[in-house]
This record gives sequence, structure tokens and C-alpha cells, in this order.
Amino acid sequence: MTTMKNIPLILMGCGGVGQQLLQHIVSCRSFHAKMGVHLRVVGICDSKSMVVSSDVLTRELNDNLISQVCRVKSNRSSLSTLTAFGECQVFMDSELRGKFLDIASLLSKVTGLAFVDCSASSETVGVLAQVVDLGCCIVLANKKPLTSTMEDYDKLVSHPRRIRHESTVGAGLPVIASLNRMILSGDPVHRIVGSLSGTLGYVMSEVEDGKPLSQVVKAAKSLGYTEPDPRDDLSGMDVARKALILARLLGRRINMGSIKIESLYPEEMGPNAMSVKDFLSTGLPLLDKDIGERVRKASLYGNVLRYVCMIEGSRVEVGIQELPKDSPLGRLRGSDNVLEIYSRCYGEQPLVIQGAGAGNDTTAAGVLADILDIQDLFP
Amino acid sequence: MTTMKNIPLILMGCGGVGQQLLQHIVSCRSFHAKMGVHLRVVGICDSKSMVVSSDVLTRELNDNLISQVCRVKSNRSSLSTLTAFGECQVFMDSELRGKFLDIASLLSKVTGLAFVDCSASSETVGVLAQVVDLGCCIVLANKKPLTSTMEDYDKLVSHPRRIRHESTVGAGLPVIASLNRMILSGDPVHRIVGSLSGTLGYVMSEVEDGKPLSQVVKAAKSLGYTEPDPRDDLSGMDVARKALILARLLGRRINMGSIKIESLYPEEMGPNAMSVKDFLSTGLPLLDKDIGERVRKASLYGNVLRYVCMIEGSRVEVGIQELPKDSPLGRLRGSDNVLEIYSRCYGEQPLVIQGAGAGNDTTAAGVLADILDIQDLFP
Repeated sequence: MTTMKNIPLILMGCGGVGQQLLQHIVSCRSFHAKMGVHLRVVGICDSKSMVVSSDVLTRELNDNLISQVCRVKSNRSSLSTLTAFGECQVFMDSELRGKFLDIASLLSKVTGLAFVDCSASSETVGVLAQVVDLGCCIVLANKKPLTSTMEDYDKLVSHPRRIRHESTVGAGLPVIASLNRMILSGDPVHRIVGSLSGTLGYVMSEVEDGKPLSQVVKAAKSLGYTEPDPRDDLSGMDVARKALILARLLGRRINMGSIKIESLYPEEMGPNAMSVKDFLSTGLPLLDKDIGERVRKASLYGNVLRYVCMIEGSRVEVGIQELPKDSPLGRLRGSDNVLEIYSRCYGEQPLVIQGAGAGNDTTAAGVLADILDIQDLFP
Repeated sequence: MTTMKNIPLILMGCGGVGQQLLQHIVSCRSFHAKMGVHLRVVGICDSKSMVVSSDVLTRELNDNLISQVCRVKSNRSSLSTLTAFGECQVFMDSELRGKFLDIASLLSKVTGLAFVDCSASSETVGVLAQVVDLGCCIVLANKKPLTSTMEDYDKLVSHPRRIRHESTVGAGLPVIASLNRMILSGDPVHRIVGSLSGTLGYVMSEVEDGKPLSQVVKAAKSLGYTEPDPRDDLSGMDVARKALILARLLGRRINMGSIKIESLYPEEMGPNAMSVKDFLSTGLPLLDKDIGERVRKASLYGNVLRYVCMIEGSRVEVGIQELPKDSPLGRLRGSDNVLEIYSRCYGEQPLVIQGAGAGNDTTAAGVLADILDIQDLFP
């Protein structure tokens, strides 16, 4: 190994995925050193504040301080308490954006800088577009910047080698990396069909067994498989975001509005119309009969229902589809994700990628692989 | 897009995969230009001779000359006839190695150079090790250099960012890229099980349907699924090479001799003991009963036979295994490859990658994606 490559990075968002990423970075230290790479964490921020190393050009937040960040955030405390634990500065609220840009313009000229967005915020897109413009790399687990307007999207991907976002679709599953390889080699992808929500995958395979939808959703919620408001999953919006990211990767210039989205509940049971409690106790049971009927009807033809994402030509849809029980999607059980990709090389039989498509560990592992993947852009 | 990135490359081996790669390079020209990349082919060689651009620093073999190379090679003619078609030089036999090293030491200092090995030769490993040492990148579809001694292997991978070899396992399937991502992110892979031979996949799924092995192999041969001597497939050596490549990627320091290989024919039917014709007409039918018996016995337990590669701990084996009919491997039909990878992140349910694992088109696409993947190493 020649010299040690130094990758400075700023982490945005230290919820579950961000904390897990920090832990992975620390636990991989000696292994990455053997490969000649050092990940130098110069800043960590949540929605309100940022802790920054005392000198971003030469110093880093050391591993002890990183552990303290994880402790503070898992206790839901503020990063501002961290100044007691080492050489660092803390910036708050209105100072944040200016500070980001200061650090970005300084480091991008000298060593490069990676902005890692593990938040779930729609607010980061502006600063990400600006730091890309300054020459920084961006690595995203956050889907929202990539599902903003086409104008924003074009800015984020304006230097295609400086952006990675594996963990925006299927958590750590090598979906984006594999599609990028196909695109680079001129193998045109003409069709993608997939089950991209662990939650809806679980729900659909349970109703297949004859259980009422309302019961399955309540069970999924108590198992921690759903968002606090299960309608965030049942609306299909999360799957639609992933579909939009895949479609744009394939070159489609479309917005969320162009995607046909099937919600599993009617508008009159939406968050504006009833509480979560009412939805679960009185709204949801009204849907049991209809979905049960659809399941039975499908089974008459040897088919099952799956909540799928389908991209073909200009058509991008997410919703329930009837599929052969004996297809990769039809066989899917539990919360695994699966993606079938059809192209010139994979014309009759698709390229299939399947595995755990959720979880902080695998999502953070995907982000970490992305960071290592851009190492050649650093001196 | 800023400036055009220029990747000079030398192609070794212009059989089916090499010719297909050249065609892909030419047909992707305008698309790659849009991405700001130009693949500059400075040399193409077969086992006997090499055609080189008139000035490797500034000139390339133009697309017309590249088409002529494909024409000449598909007619099984010599590259030496090419001097008539444009500005190029041809070097023969004993001059080759010296010329490789001259070009490598010249270009590695100025622009970098990628050596692309699409041959099936065990002779290229020496020159590949030398050009790596000179600072060149290597991209391999050829398995043999990576299955040579550990000493050779260590030399080839001594600069891990400068080697890519996706198409050595599962053709263009994103197997190596996905494993590399897992390794980089510190997700330890503890088990790989796969079906990595399209030929043996076809054979095993046909005998499962009750057909005699001898009949299935003859049909496979007439369909062009096997090597000219089907024993090259039936011996398991090709699968063992892929297993060794995967095991070494995971850090196992082993040689071919450490792999337990089950051959589908006994030694007394080997190439030294009988001709291909005798093997097919009199040897092979003697094996029908035994394999038929094993198929029937497995089916009693709901199992099927698959020729698999299994890597777990220090154990690396290739051979027939009894597997549940209802597992990803058990369900495999025809000539698709499938790989199940178990790690910390994919602990209970594996990461599964499945699709066409053979064919010049997909193999060459994998090589081309590898070449584009190292673009950040070029100025």
C-alpha cells in the first residue's frame, strides 16, 4: 500500500441509519487502514445543530466523540451538549447553512469532501446542490432530494461520478450499483418490476394466507414493521419515491406527479380525515372484505397479489398487481425486497436481486460502501 | 460535463468475448462521449501477434480498423493482414512481451493504461503482474490469472483499486461488484452457495425431469451449451476456478489443490483414457443409472440435485448437492446462474443474485462496465 487516502466527510442526519453508519465507520477503522483509507469525520449534524472538528483542514471528530454523538442522539438529546467531550465547535440553526458552505468551499479545494445525507428531510436538497457545485461528493440514503423537482435532480447528478445513493432503494441491496453498471456498458434496461417495500411485502404475503388486512396491519405495527402512522406505508408514497429514483436513473425526465400510485386506503380515511387510532379501529376493517375478495379471485388463477413497482417505457406505476404464484415476486415472503431487471443482456430471464431491503444495519452498510466507492476522487 | 476523460487500453484476446467487447466499445462511442469518457484502443492482440496504433501516446486504432480486427478474427485469419487498413504497426510472437512493457511503462507515466484480458490463456499472468507493477490497471474476463499461485494472485491484487474482474464469475452478473461492496463496508461474508455453470445447471435440471445423463449431455453439446469436449464442463474444473476466485476475494489464501472437486465422470473415462466420441457413446451411458438413482433418492425427500459451489469458513467445495426443491438453487431451471450470499446483514435470508451467467454479450458488457468503473483513476 502506498500513502493513506484521507476522505473528509460531513454526516447529515443522525437518526438510526446515521448512528449505525458512525458505528460502522469506527468498527472498520483498522480494516480500512489496511486498505489505505481513512474516513475523517469533520462534522455531524441533525436538523438543529452541527458539531464540527476544531480545524476542518487537519483535525477530525475522534472516535470517542463519535461514540458520544451516538449516545446523545439515542437519548434524543441535543448535540450542543457535546462541547464538553473534546476539541469541537457546535453551530446552531441559522448558522448551519453558511457553515456547510464555508467548510465545503475550503475542503473541496484542498482534499475534497463528501456530504453524507442519512436524514429523512426534504430540506437538504438546497445545500446538497450547492456543495456539488463547489466540487464536493454526495452520498445519500435520503430519498427526498432525488425525488424533488427535475431541476434539483439535474443539479445533484450534474457530476455523475460524484454522487452515490445505493441506500435510497432496497436499503443496502446492490440495486443502484448494478443498474449503473448496466447503463455504463450500454445495456439498455427496458423493464423493472419489483417489490420495494418490506412493510407492504409482509402485508401482502400475510393477506395471501387469508388473514384480514386490518389484523395484518395491526400486527405489522406492533412488530415495528410500519411507520408510526401505517398510512405512510399503505399510501404507496415511499414505494413511489423509489420508483421515481429508478426511473430517473434510467433517464426518464418525470416527477412524482407522473407516477400512478395506488393507495391501499381511500382518501376519506387519510390523515386529514381521521386519527391513526380511528383508522386502525374503524377505518381499516372496512377494507378487509374488498382485499380478501381480490386475494381469493387472484388465487383462482394460481396468482397472488403483490404491491409492486413497475417501470416500462414511459409508464411508471406502483400498486397491487396479480402475479403468478410461481414467479420471483409471487414467491416472495416476509419483508425481503426483490427486483427483476429486463434488458438486452437479460432479455428473456431477468437479472434478479433479492434480499433484506430494510434495517439500519444494511442501509448504513450500503452508505459506507458508497463512501469507499468514491475514494478514487480523493487525493 | 468538464473535459473529456481518455482511457487508453490494450485488449488481450479477441475470441468471442473480445470481439463483442470491441463492438460494444464502438457502439457506445456517442453515449460514452456524453458522459465525458473516451475509450482509446491503442492495441489489440491474440496469442500470436498484436496490432498497435502508430503512436500510442496520441493515436488510437480507429473504429474502422477495430471492425477489421473483428472481421479478421471471426474468419480465423492473422492480425498481420491488418497493416493494409490504416495507421498501425503489427508485432509478432517474441516481440510481444517487450512491446507490452514498453507501452505500459510509457503510458502509465503519462495517462495511465488499462490491460483488458479477454483471453482464456494461462500465459497472460506474467505480463499482467508486470504491468500492474508499472502502475497500469487490469480488467479480466480470463479466470486463469486469478487461479494461478497465491504469489501471482498477490501481485495482481497488490493495488486493489486497479483491478476489476466481474466477468470471471457469472459472466456480467454483478457478483464481484456486490461482494466488493459488502467487503468494503465491513459486512463479513460467511457463506456463499451458488450454481455457477450454465452448462451444469442445464444438465442437472434436465436429469431432474427423468432424462438419462448421457442423453442430456449429448443434447447440451448439440445445442452448443458445452465445450467441444463436454468433460471440460463435467469435470467441475471451471466451477472450481470460479469458487477459488470467490474464496480468494473473501480473503482465503488457498490454491486449486485445496478445493474439493466432484467430477461427474470417473478418471478412467478421462481425456487421457478415451476420445470424446468414445466417452459420449460408450462411457457416458454407464453413468446414467447411478445419477438416475441419486435423482430419485433425492426426490423422495422433496429434494433435487444441483452442481453447486459452496464456500463456508475454510471449506471450499464444488460438486453435486441435494437441495430443497423449494430453495432458490432448487428452483433454478435452464442455464441461469444463481448465487446466495450470507453475511451479517444477510444473515437469515441471503442476498440472492440470479440471471444469465454465460454468453459473449453479457460477459463483454461486464468487462465494459469494469473499464468504465476505473475511470476515476485516469486524468
